[in-house]
Amino acid sequence: MAEPSFSLRTPEDDDIPRRICDSCGFVAYENPKIVVGSVVRHEGRILLCRRAIEPRRGFWTIPAGYLELNETPEDGARREAREEAEAELSIERLLAVYSVPRISQVQLIYRAQLKTSHFAPGPESLDVALFAPAEIPYGELAFPSVHWALAHDAEAKNGAPPVPFANPPGETGNRMPDGRSIAPGEG
Amino acid sequence: MAEPSFSLRTPEDDDIPRRICDSCGFVAYENPKIVVGSVVRHEGRILLCRRAIEPRRGFWTIPAGYLELNETPEDGARREAREEAEAELSIERLLAVYSVPRISQVQLIYRAQLKTSHFAPGPESLDVALFAPAEIPYGELAFPSVHWALAHDAEAKNGAPPVPFANPPGETGNRMPDGRSIAPGEG
Repeated sequence: MAEPSFSLRTPEDDDIPRRICDSCGFVAYENPKIVVGSVVRHEGRILLCRRAIEPRRGFWTIPAGYLELNETPEDGARREAREEAEAELSIERLLAVYSVPRISQVQLIYRAQLKTSHFAPGPESLDVALFAPAEIPYGELAFPSVHWALAHDAEAKNGAPPVPFANPPGETGNRMPDGRSIAPGEG
Repeated sequence: MAEPSFSLRTPEDDDIPRRICDSCGFVAYENPKIVVGSVVRHEGRILLCRRAIEPRRGFWTIPAGYLELNETPEDGARREAREEAEAELSIERLLAVYSVPRISQVQLIYRAQLKTSHFAPGPESLDVALFAPAEIPYGELAFPSVHWALAHDAEAKNGAPPVPFANPPGETGNRMPDGRSIAPGEG
């Protein structure tokens, strides 16, 4: 069997170059991806997962991942919490819609509560823990959007109206709040 | 050159069957798609486009389409209005997040105003027109989510709080409000 080998060419009925396989002619249309995740609270503390996989292995994140085919975003957010943290969620509402155009991501982030007190690291997590707001390891968070989601969750808890939050003004997910740039692929 | 020919098999590092090309081994990961669109108002009337393409050719819809790579949802919603209706939009806010899991779609629908009074059918539209609320051709709307978006826009106009609306309870985008089922691919 030949190996797949792609060139960037524009299909006849299109106006954007797409990756087309030189061996078989398959057009690999690429679309932005949907990330679904949750800020999960339990008795006033927040559930975070320490990533066992790249990018940002060893850093802390909220349970989140790619939406699968034929899945609702809420089902996807519950599945990701189950896979990464063995946690069963009760979803309250949509908290935020972020976009990271550099890596073609749209993120739908929910507010949720743990249904039971059980949680444990799944295969993609080194550790899972509950943090009181003052104990959150801000210097070791994986992505800019994890900062945004935790800040927006705190605003919502303090009575902000239930609008979905969006990217902070001028931010496109390319740098951490301290100004450090985040390398390509690490958004 | 061989033709692409796909079988459904589970890659080694995965637990979901994916389409794998028999000629070249390429794994065609498929992801849900993001639709971005807008309920567009101008002087109290609403802009609708009559579709020139399948599915639902001849039916009326709001300007909407697939988000492209490296595009923010707001930019995508503006681009779609430009392509389908030659309309320049001023986006106000996110109105609704819908999901149609049968066809693996997540839809982000914005509220917008026309920036100028110019509009005209683009290549994917047979016609573009402004409708007073009482004149909207409800019997000729293209998709269930167009009904939802117009109803949610009216609720927002009547002072509903700025929450993003979601699918009506129990609805997954498979039927029109009169109960008619919508054929596969026509969601």
